[in-house]
Amino acid sequence: MAEKQHPVPAYGLAARDQSGLVSPFNFSRRETGETDVKFKVLYCGICHSDLHMLKNEWGSSTYPIVPGHEIVGQVTEVGSKVEKYRVGDRVGVGCMVGSCRSCNNCSQSIENYCPKMIQTYGGTYHDGTPTYGGYSDVMVCDEHFVVRVPDSLPLDVAAPLLCAGITLYSPLKFYGLDKPGLHVGIVGLGGLGHVGVKFAKAMGVKVTVISTSPGKKQEAIERHGADAFLVSLDQEQMKAAMGTMDGIIDTVSAVHPIMPLIGLLKTQGKLVLVGAPEKPLELPVFPLLMGRKIVGGSCIGGMKETQEMLDFAAKHNITADIEVISADYVNTAMERLAKNDVKYRFVIDVANTMQAP
Amino acid sequence: MAEKQHPVPAYGLAARDQSGLVSPFNFSRRETGETDVKFKVLYCGICHSDLHMLKNEWGSSTYPIVPGHEIVGQVTEVGSKVEKYRVGDRVGVGCMVGSCRSCNNCSQSIENYCPKMIQTYGGTYHDGTPTYGGYSDVMVCDEHFVVRVPDSLPLDVAAPLLCAGITLYSPLKFYGLDKPGLHVGIVGLGGLGHVGVKFAKAMGVKVTVISTSPGKKQEAIERHGADAFLVSLDQEQMKAAMGTMDGIIDTVSAVHPIMPLIGLLKTQGKLVLVGAPEKPLELPVFPLLMGRKIVGGSCIGGMKETQEMLDFAAKHNITADIEVISADYVNTAMERLAKNDVKYRFVIDVANTMQAP
Repeated sequence: MAEKQHPVPAYGLAARDQSGLVSPFNFSRRETGETDVKFKVLYCGICHSDLHMLKNEWGSSTYPIVPGHEIVGQVTEVGSKVEKYRVGDRVGVGCMVGSCRSCNNCSQSIENYCPKMIQTYGGTYHDGTPTYGGYSDVMVCDEHFVVRVPDSLPLDVAAPLLCAGITLYSPLKFYGLDKPGLHVGIVGLGGLGHVGVKFAKAMGVKVTVISTSPGKKQEAIERHGADAFLVSLDQEQMKAAMGTMDGIIDTVSAVHPIMPLIGLLKTQGKLVLVGAPEKPLELPVFPLLMGRKIVGGSCIGGMKETQEMLDFAAKHNITADIEVISADYVNTAMERLAKNDVKYRFVIDVANTMQAP
Repeated sequence: MAEKQHPVPAYGLAARDQSGLVSPFNFSRRETGETDVKFKVLYCGICHSDLHMLKNEWGSSTYPIVPGHEIVGQVTEVGSKVEKYRVGDRVGVGCMVGSCRSCNNCSQSIENYCPKMIQTYGGTYHDGTPTYGGYSDVMVCDEHFVVRVPDSLPLDVAAPLLCAGITLYSPLKFYGLDKPGLHVGIVGLGGLGHVGVKFAKAMGVKVTVISTSPGKKQEAIERHGADAFLVSLDQEQMKAAMGTMDGIIDTVSAVHPIMPLIGLLKTQGKLVLVGAPEKPLELPVFPLLMGRKIVGGSCIGGMKETQEMLDFAAKHNITADIEVISADYVNTAMERLAKNDVKYRFVIDVANTMQAP
């Protein structure tokens, strides 16, 4: 099956149905417009939301889907009005490729909250054609939604920062949890959580990883630099830690109790959810009232902040821990991802393993 | 039944069991200590939480209970080290009469969030004796927990400000919803909500009352000065108002859906709960993430802020709308309160109708 609505041939992996499987897909990209950047995709991370989208678990999938929103590569062509990038530059595209550029949110550089934000894949672009993601050999994107990957960051380990990285960096900043001396909990030590620990530590806060898996203590502390580790199912540990945290970033996307997490917060503490359970959570109200606590949400970050996050990562040598895979391993990787069997992010070696036959 | 652990005779109304009924009660107050203020109680408001406590609906009641935490009166004696008050002053006591005075919260003037905060009634004072509230003829309280009622505020209509007033004033300030030009929703037009409308209007914000009762539209707008009125059960009205509010103060203490309220918020909007449903609410997570919205709590206010609130009320002529009742009407008032049959607060004329036989 092929698709040919644009002039530029592209090749990638696509899901055709809810099976969760991807297979080779010939499609097309638009010509490089005046403000567009075209780049050769070198690596693309696999995000857990790719799996949700493949299987239509959020009910919004339209097939075929070319997943991937942790995309890095090298610029091969720029439009006549492009100002920030030149051929050869190392660039990236994250979760969005467009927005209205005029609403209140866009004018505050939080395009990620624009009601007309266009997702990197599974969305509909301004020209009415579907958007396709980074499990593909070439990418064309308006320069506003392209970021520069600093030279000191290797591209493969930088790719996951474009979604996982900004998802954790943004709430740490927005909710004021980036001040040295504060104590922040990170719930879940997966693709999101492990970069959250690194960012929070680099900001100077004390970090406690909260997990259901006692076995993750050593890696949390020794490998990622967390200060402490809490087993969330251990009542005594949890009780001893009550009222000690200024904030918690909760990366868990399964339905889970948040009452114990609210209990860990100090007065005026903040529980920030960045995972998206399909069903509502139970919100106990008394504990919120009695401590003037809040439960908030956060979703990726704006373009300006995404660039700031990459620059911060470069300055502090923050990268994702990854397992590089070839294109023909993606279906196996998805199976492993469903079982959380990855430390901590799969990244596809697109340049070397994904070529049109 | 009488109680005589302290030297100063006191007379009031007490509940002896979960029936919800009060009856005459002879008890005692401590002598006026060095930092204490003793005052003749003139009026005391009836708060909905009095009803919960009488019936032990929160499971924490210990009988006998003398309710009342919206207490105003006139000073009759002051301790040797009292600095702020003199005999004859018009004063008030709200929801608390003590705290540790040394914790992080106390040192930030948010004694209301001190883990050792002592409630005005139903609590245990530093000396180990139970605290009794304002349904009584005399009150003794440390001056730190006494506020001055400005001369321009009549005492009867000022009494409810000590709980209902500060409960709404504090979150409007803390959550930054007090800036002219903002749009704030107030859910529920009862004892809390009606003073919330007045405070928010005086702060210069646009106020929309959100209620299940279409019949309250006229009073919300004409009597209290709200700018708009939304019937929360009217899908079309709610849909038209989506994404228009910077914040919402939700005064409803029954279990209710908050998803529609979150929908009314703009990006980064704040839903603040000040009512305390007995069971957890359903928290939809996607809408929080997609708009970086928060759900927070707030519970009364600190002593410094309570005084600030009274001074603000005096400056802007804000008072509660009340129905003054006599002591022998309290049981009937409680029945009516349970049916929300009051506009908007009962206030007991203590001085004229509550005297020891």
